[in-house]
Amino acid sequence: MPLPPSWSSPIPEPDPDFTERAKARQDQLTKPQGSLGQLEQLAIQLAGLQGTDQPAADPAAITVFAADHGVCREGVSAYPQAVTAQMIANFAAGGAAISVLAKQLGAILEVVNLGTVAPVKDLPGVRNAPIAPGTANLADEPAMSRAQLATALQEGDLAAQRTANGGGRIFIGGDMGIGNTTSASAIACILLNQPPKALTGPGTGLDPQGIKHKEAVIERALKRHGTAADPADVLASLGGFEIAALTGAMLGCAARGIPVLVDGFIVSVAALVAVRQQPSVRPWLLFAHQSAEPGHQSLLAALDAQPLLQLGMRLGEGSGAALALPLLRSACALHNTMASFAGAGVTDRDTH
Amino acid sequence: MPLPPSWSSPIPEPDPDFTERAKARQDQLTKPQGSLGQLEQLAIQLAGLQGTDQPAADPAAITVFAADHGVCREGVSAYPQAVTAQMIANFAAGGAAISVLAKQLGAILEVVNLGTVAPVKDLPGVRNAPIAPGTANLADEPAMSRAQLATALQEGDLAAQRTANGGGRIFIGGDMGIGNTTSASAIACILLNQPPKALTGPGTGLDPQGIKHKEAVIERALKRHGTAADPADVLASLGGFEIAALTGAMLGCAARGIPVLVDGFIVSVAALVAVRQQPSVRPWLLFAHQSAEPGHQSLLAALDAQPLLQLGMRLGEGSGAALALPLLRSACALHNTMASFAGAGVTDRDTH
Repeated sequence: MPLPPSWSSPIPEPDPDFTERAKARQDQLTKPQGSLGQLEQLAIQLAGLQGTDQPAADPAAITVFAADHGVCREGVSAYPQAVTAQMIANFAAGGAAISVLAKQLGAILEVVNLGTVAPVKDLPGVRNAPIAPGTANLADEPAMSRAQLATALQEGDLAAQRTANGGGRIFIGGDMGIGNTTSASAIACILLNQPPKALTGPGTGLDPQGIKHKEAVIERALKRHGTAADPADVLASLGGFEIAALTGAMLGCAARGIPVLVDGFIVSVAALVAVRQQPSVRPWLLFAHQSAEPGHQSLLAALDAQPLLQLGMRLGEGSGAALALPLLRSACALHNTMASFAGAGVTDRDTH
Repeated sequence: MPLPPSWSSPIPEPDPDFTERAKARQDQLTKPQGSLGQLEQLAIQLAGLQGTDQPAADPAAITVFAADHGVCREGVSAYPQAVTAQMIANFAAGGAAISVLAKQLGAILEVVNLGTVAPVKDLPGVRNAPIAPGTANLADEPAMSRAQLATALQEGDLAAQRTANGGGRIFIGGDMGIGNTTSASAIACILLNQPPKALTGPGTGLDPQGIKHKEAVIERALKRHGTAADPADVLASLGGFEIAALTGAMLGCAARGIPVLVDGFIVSVAALVAVRQQPSVRPWLLFAHQSAEPGHQSLLAALDAQPLLQLGMRLGEGSGAALALPLLRSACALHNTMASFAGAGVTDRDTH
């Protein structure tokens, strides 16, 4: 299977005319200039990206990519691998955090199963597309073949295509995969040229001894991998299927003109891979929150990202991004429907 | 007019049984313990305050208190005083930021006019209750009489009563009053025992020279006032009608069992007055955001508050609190409707 076109085809730039018009509009609304803080920048950015005077955060589409990780045999997670498949069923049944949030927020939710150790039966809202029953153990060998990488990237691109077909204006990618902070930290170590100690954290809840062991496992993986920093090499060697799919989804959304609201640690690693492959994807990425996973701060700095929320969350599933969605909606509503000084007969500071 | 009963009557404590049950429930939901960060604490806090296993953020009631300030004759604001009355009309017409947010978020919005320089005609959604055409100039004399203070506090208490009558589960107070950061900074200087330089900022947009002048005006007010830190003394001497009403509304809501989502600089000053008058009101206050107004950080520290949002906003009107409302809603939805490990058949970390 070939890599999806969005892996290397040109990514559109934000439209400078709409950006300028949005800036001018913000300065006419009945509020002191700049007083809505980051919400003003959000509305301006969305106007330029969506190429419109009326930016919108709806419909919002959430896709959670799920997969298992061979590295779990090294004992790097507080939870057993069976939980990945169990959580897919929980997503479908509406009991998981992202299911509750998607319902509450009126966002579209779909789950893509890219391969779990325990089989996943047909479930409503779940696309069953297993590549393998989890990746290989990245501490010992490449996590996936090039063909498997291509399939994972294509699955991400297909989610972007479905979002575009459904008229989605904002895309949120989520992750589920026991063991995936080990994979994500390893990728971040290579791309940021930092040692495991700097980018390894508790994940779902390791104790300090568990974190030390996880660092040692990542160290083994990095020794095996070497220093190759080509995005496809790094994903195939150290990735998870869901991380590769997230990278593919972000590139695919940007290529189709759909801004992406980026979740926490795992999705930010996928975003970093996407930016290394195609730097022009960066303007399409809005960063939702700063995770409690300690390595996230370095990732956000490397991506020059100012996240909207800092709530100490570390759940994944796209949950942090979902929580930031109302801020995008409000930014758009304020931009689109507030009165202007002239229209409301309110005296502006420079006119009295 | 007497002070409202909530000024000095006992304020209920959060219910420890519901708090404990909510903590236990959070640990059974299908997520690593603590992974929802501040949202877990929010749900637990609301359960204890509302005395329920099913905390709720709806209906949410927003009351914006508006009034003019005599100190404006000292040239302390970037905007003319006429804007206060103009903005009341803009609130009613749906063009102001808080109007747009209330509509978008499905919150109840009412405006209480406590006295403006320009007359305010009858408008839908506006309670016309002018105490005087603005306060006296606090740089030269007490801003209001004891009778005026009592009326302003009563107006706040009445808003709390209306919220209770309407079944409101969360109260948001907002402010509108050209010049009111001067009043708020002066109050904060007395209560925090800090000099004007530490707590004076640009408000709606003063330049550095304007801020220096504002500091000098506050310095004059503090010299006149002396060091009396009794909350009623401070409000009458340095307050605004809307600030006093906000204090009254917070005390009135807590007395009636309604948690308050606190907005930015102005409302936090009113909250500090409330806490100094009745320390037991503190658990009822949830802090929505950290304002860009530089003095807000000291206020939040003095109130031991961890705000939910830091978006660089400095608008007032209750807008920052409105933006945090969806976080409360999500915290409640997650708490009330997520599946438990046992219920969803998901393996917990300690059980495998």
